[in-house]
Amino acid sequence: MKTLDVNTGAPYKIYIEHGILDEAGKYVREVSGALRAVIISDSNVAPFYAGRVESSLKKEGFETSVFVFEAGEERKRLSTIEKMYMHFFDHNITRTDIVVALGGGVTGDMAGFAAASYLRGIDFVQIPTSLLSQVDSSVGGKTGVDLPGGKNLVGAFWQPRVVLIDPDTLDTLPAGLYEDGMGEVIKYGCIKSRSLFELLEKENARDITDEIICRSVAIKRDVVSEDERESGLRAILNFGHTFGHALEKLHGYSGLTHGEAVGIGALMLTEITEAKGITEKGVSERIRALLEKNNMPTGDSFTLEEIIGATRGDKKTAGNDLKFVFLKDIGDCYIHKLPTNSMMDFFGV
Amino acid sequence: MKTLDVNTGAPYKIYIEHGILDEAGKYVREVSGALRAVIISDSNVAPFYAGRVESSLKKEGFETSVFVFEAGEERKRLSTIEKMYMHFFDHNITRTDIVVALGGGVTGDMAGFAAASYLRGIDFVQIPTSLLSQVDSSVGGKTGVDLPGGKNLVGAFWQPRVVLIDPDTLDTLPAGLYEDGMGEVIKYGCIKSRSLFELLEKENARDITDEIICRSVAIKRDVVSEDERESGLRAILNFGHTFGHALEKLHGYSGLTHGEAVGIGALMLTEITEAKGITEKGVSERIRALLEKNNMPTGDSFTLEEIIGATRGDKKTAGNDLKFVFLKDIGDCYIHKLPTNSMMDFFGV
Repeated sequence: MKTLDVNTGAPYKIYIEHGILDEAGKYVREVSGALRAVIISDSNVAPFYAGRVESSLKKEGFETSVFVFEAGEERKRLSTIEKMYMHFFDHNITRTDIVVALGGGVTGDMAGFAAASYLRGIDFVQIPTSLLSQVDSSVGGKTGVDLPGGKNLVGAFWQPRVVLIDPDTLDTLPAGLYEDGMGEVIKYGCIKSRSLFELLEKENARDITDEIICRSVAIKRDVVSEDERESGLRAILNFGHTFGHALEKLHGYSGLTHGEAVGIGALMLTEITEAKGITEKGVSERIRALLEKNNMPTGDSFTLEEIIGATRGDKKTAGNDLKFVFLKDIGDCYIHKLPTNSMMDFFGV
Repeated sequence: MKTLDVNTGAPYKIYIEHGILDEAGKYVREVSGALRAVIISDSNVAPFYAGRVESSLKKEGFETSVFVFEAGEERKRLSTIEKMYMHFFDHNITRTDIVVALGGGVTGDMAGFAAASYLRGIDFVQIPTSLLSQVDSSVGGKTGVDLPGGKNLVGAFWQPRVVLIDPDTLDTLPAGLYEDGMGEVIKYGCIKSRSLFELLEKENARDITDEIICRSVAIKRDVVSEDERESGLRAILNFGHTFGHALEKLHGYSGLTHGEAVGIGALMLTEITEAKGITEKGVSERIRALLEKNNMPTGDSFTLEEIIGATRGDKKTAGNDLKFVFLKDIGDCYIHKLPTNSMMDFFGV
């Protein structure tokens, strides 16, 4: 068992342990005196794990109910959140009750936002079941839903009361979703840990999954503990994400996973900053090699001009500036603000 | 000019001044470096005041836009919030921009929730134009929208950056809405200020509106500064509201204003607690007289049993307990938790 402490406004623990799903009730009870617990899960994950988590919660005396929504990013909408609210109301959920997010990033983001906004905020816990949600979205309290105009445009900062990570759940991950998580893992190496990056160069990721999860979560934990609401440092976690989000948007949020888009975004950006002398020579080649090694795409048919055009409405915009994260070297990065009207110039298109 | 400081997590000021509407831009600029400001108002208030506030914002260099929704509690729904989000997106609102809520309680609650949840939270200011919103809802950071099951079931605690109160706006208040505000004013006297209550007994409210606003806001400020998120003391502000909200629900949120419902709720509850010896003799009679003096109803055709039945789903429920606020005397109250399954017994129905 690995335990990590997150020192946000309301501190909480992350437990990483094989089989912890069957102990979920015990860990939820440690942080909650709730009468009722609502498990929120999607149609892919619920059949595998909702029953086990529910039994475990019942054992601790929680009155349980399960809300299942159709899997898919296209369900990450206010209409689904509204259904969650109605479920809460129908099941007499009160301010002292608790929401259990069981699933990948879409589930955690939505369940977290529903919890943040129902009755002006009730507790929730994260039980992430995908590599992406385990290494990234379950930690740090960013919750959200999409609007037609872009991803996660609506949301709240709302920290979970505890995060339970069971690496065994990765065994049931559909093809391609391991790679989805690897996009963020490689990102952590790029921005904060040369040693993680080098480990990934040396080893086969699937042979060292536990270590990858622990090291990634520790980096995320360090960053969000220092800057819970992204007023400064936390923005480095967006490395690769400005172009990545734009690519996802151009692809209509299908065909390309978030992690793949982040990988391409990181590589495209670093090729440019390397050519400009901002990044050490050879860094982009190493990123490219690591993406290839992990069966991830290294390019896309959309042009840089189209990608930059699609950054309009990016949440990272402040006034007329868009924040980018540039690498100096592997494991070393900084935030650079670019006026949105000079982006085409800067990127030479 | 009267200035009050609110010491919540993010502190802010309340300015009370005749004609301050035309200076709005100056006060918003003091707290915001935003490029863009969105005025949110309803179809009743916008024709009177949106132009003046917009001119004043433009004078300070804000790029402005105005979002107007159809007036009425029945518009206080997620569908209206979604339209606000789309307006924000279409007008390139970024994390450093600002929302200006101009109107009554419905406007402030919704604009506040939209600001709290867009891009995980952007700044907003309150310019309340009804007595109810000036003395109550614009201060303290409670934002919300209704669900079919009940009022304000969805929302967030999100403090405004500044509150600008212009008592002149009360001149355009439709008939009945002054009384709506008086329900909360009388409540403040009941729970916290015998001297305010006695002043209301002695004077005609409309002759001392400025004093009423200042004293009410000061009480609200004191309470929310001490307990921003209603973990304790703040719940006393709900005096009269448990029955009041139930009455509003039974009336389908029309025909009876919030303030009228709170007045009836306060009176009904106090008659019972007085009969039980919890409240000093004569208190309910004084409340009744003050309601009558202010042309407010003192009873309703729904029975106590129906009212108690309609408290199901009340936000103030925690687990199986519902919090009530009981008066000991005028200006002196305490919080009493009642198990929901013993309410009928307690109230003798």
